[in-house]
Amino acid sequence: MEAIIITVGDEILIGQVVDTNSAWIAEQLNLQGIRLREIHSVSDTREAIIAALNRAFQHTDLILMTGGLGPTKDDITKKAIADYYETGMVFHDPTFERIQKLFERWGRTMTEAHRMQCYMPENAKLLANRMGTAPGMWFERDGKVLISMPGVPYEMKAIMTDEALPRLRERFAGQPIAHRTILTVGEGESRLAARIQTFEEQLPENISIAYLPNLGQVRVRLTATGHDQAELERLLDAKVEEIRHYLSEFIFGYEKETLPEVIGRRLNANDLTIATAESCTGGYLAHLITSVAGASEYFKGSVIAYANEVKMHQLGVQADTLRQYGAVSEATVLEMAAGVRAAMHTDIGLATSGIAGPDGGTPEKPVGTIWLAIDGPQGAHAMKLQLGKDRLKNIEYTASQALNLVRQQLDQLQEVSKI
Amino acid sequence: MEAIIITVGDEILIGQVVDTNSAWIAEQLNLQGIRLREIHSVSDTREAIIAALNRAFQHTDLILMTGGLGPTKDDITKKAIADYYETGMVFHDPTFERIQKLFERWGRTMTEAHRMQCYMPENAKLLANRMGTAPGMWFERDGKVLISMPGVPYEMKAIMTDEALPRLRERFAGQPIAHRTILTVGEGESRLAARIQTFEEQLPENISIAYLPNLGQVRVRLTATGHDQAELERLLDAKVEEIRHYLSEFIFGYEKETLPEVIGRRLNANDLTIATAESCTGGYLAHLITSVAGASEYFKGSVIAYANEVKMHQLGVQADTLRQYGAVSEATVLEMAAGVRAAMHTDIGLATSGIAGPDGGTPEKPVGTIWLAIDGPQGAHAMKLQLGKDRLKNIEYTASQALNLVRQQLDQLQEVSKI
Repeated sequence: MEAIIITVGDEILIGQVVDTNSAWIAEQLNLQGIRLREIHSVSDTREAIIAALNRAFQHTDLILMTGGLGPTKDDITKKAIADYYETGMVFHDPTFERIQKLFERWGRTMTEAHRMQCYMPENAKLLANRMGTAPGMWFERDGKVLISMPGVPYEMKAIMTDEALPRLRERFAGQPIAHRTILTVGEGESRLAARIQTFEEQLPENISIAYLPNLGQVRVRLTATGHDQAELERLLDAKVEEIRHYLSEFIFGYEKETLPEVIGRRLNANDLTIATAESCTGGYLAHLITSVAGASEYFKGSVIAYANEVKMHQLGVQADTLRQYGAVSEATVLEMAAGVRAAMHTDIGLATSGIAGPDGGTPEKPVGTIWLAIDGPQGAHAMKLQLGKDRLKNIEYTASQALNLVRQQLDQLQEVSKI
Repeated sequence: MEAIIITVGDEILIGQVVDTNSAWIAEQLNLQGIRLREIHSVSDTREAIIAALNRAFQHTDLILMTGGLGPTKDDITKKAIADYYETGMVFHDPTFERIQKLFERWGRTMTEAHRMQCYMPENAKLLANRMGTAPGMWFERDGKVLISMPGVPYEMKAIMTDEALPRLRERFAGQPIAHRTILTVGEGESRLAARIQTFEEQLPENISIAYLPNLGQVRVRLTATGHDQAELERLLDAKVEEIRHYLSEFIFGYEKETLPEVIGRRLNANDLTIATAESCTGGYLAHLITSVAGASEYFKGSVIAYANEVKMHQLGVQADTLRQYGAVSEATVLEMAAGVRAAMHTDIGLATSGIAGPDGGTPEKPVGTIWLAIDGPQGAHAMKLQLGKDRLKNIEYTASQALNLVRQQLDQLQEVSKI
């Protein structure tokens, strides 16, 4: 079973909004075993919509369409769909009454634009929208289904969850498909691939592998298709076990977790607290940690120490260390990690100091020279990175590697507790 | 002139990543006066890529393709393109040497996969990629252009900015078009629009206006089309002057500047230094400030104070204040701002404390209750925000409003110095 998503709206084509609806729908379809063949974003004109419908139905029996429904739009989508099916528009009384009641509850008066919303293509089955005024619509002809929904994300999601997905489950029992995503950090895409080359070459034909790299992290995704869902799940579980043999030191999690989430969960489980002392990452590391809801359980705080006087006064870095080795050095970053750990009474101190760029390098310490350190229950440890000249990329990559230092100490702790 | 974007990659079709590249490219094309006709997301198979190229070139002379370039085996885009053009692959020595040098600098060894990356379709003109190993490619046949770029956003952006856009400007000189972007903060989209309603109604037909809102900031963009470039530029300069009359108190800059850049430039010009004390923003405010190259000139550091003990010990907030008013209060946030200003010997202290969510609220202080304060040469000032339940949105919006407090004090300083 294959589907195509069509998103309607010039706001996407001029780059005013990012299309987040498609990714959400894609994931829901995927979980149903419905393969998404393509996504088409088209203009909100009658011609573009009809052309997109004709084209997509050449290749698929299921189209999900978002956008172009609502009181401020010209409502071109509905008329275009009616024209595509060569049908007329009818006034839908129950929808009118529902919208009228909504407006009464809000204490506002219905506009003519809202009344116009109650005209629907004659062949539409309506899909209830508990989050807004415009209902979704289900069309069916010659075994081909079109679902049309508003573009407002929470309205689309409500219609999908309440109405469209249950009907799709009934209507299309698709070919079984299964996925596993293995999340890694600390090794690049190609070296990771080299480590599992033999594994990859021996994969059966119904399993494919993909590498999705992003700033020091690589997601490895396995996809299996076949006839028996349970068998696919077992097969992939076994394959994930195999990959763990090759990549265990780099794996930080699975599926949709993020590195800060995993570390937060593990810190909590181990009853450990953390603080950061940041120079070159400038608060980004703390931001990653605190982007996780509930971070206050294990994160006490940070000192962002751009100025050397802050490194000395707030973190206790020795003036001698700064004079002898400089701010970007193993000695300084170790004192920063120990300093913030002591000042904030945490179990772990994590520190960064480097030349983020694009300027400020010297022959001995070029732009991209960055030192990281951790000071925790498994002792103190520093490492050096030699990165490029892009400031933001350096900051993000460094933060990812710093979190990896925490993960490694948590792994060591786990090993110790096993002994 | 019309274009079509093709994004290649199953990660988009299974909903694992949101396609943010297309919106960015769409905006760039729009600024060049190139209309984006459609966006197609397709699978990373040879057949899907070739079919997408054939289909898109039926409707347009320009395709921009992202994704499917990189060192691992799932990257078949290049071969598909070579097959589409019925050409072979050749080894590209300069690319090999460039990658080799990169790896030497990183102190790592090149893999076979990286060597394979140096094979290019014979008819490709390479577009330099200063952010990664895979170059972009420019193809041209029968007056139709295909640009292929890696899917990693910062690599794609570097290739677009450095190589593709300048060539597109040369290659497709369209009708003269001019743009001005006015950057505002502190007033919502619809209230901003109401303030310049008269201005908007009196705009000549060849000028359009667009509001691009994002988390407390609104970019107001004027676009003029005509026959004489110089005349369009003069016309828009005059219109910008008019808008300044209505919106001066909200304007922080023009074109591509960011609020942290503007504030950094103005702090430098006034020889002022700044530090932040952050609770709910968790380092994001410091990150925004330090994302600007050269921030060390005016930014000394921050204390991220999640735990109350950090608020007391590192920032000097009184235990009584926390007990009487709580951590999320005007009194606490004012003490935090004064505290970090004193501790780091800066001219300005900027502080945030709130309930970022999605949980942790109380009836008196629901999720989204956030206090901000500034302590600087123009005195101390606090303000309260009442936001929603989305943690990341709350963090980003709050940081933007905090920077606006700095901008307002800098404006006041300027007024004073005029007197």
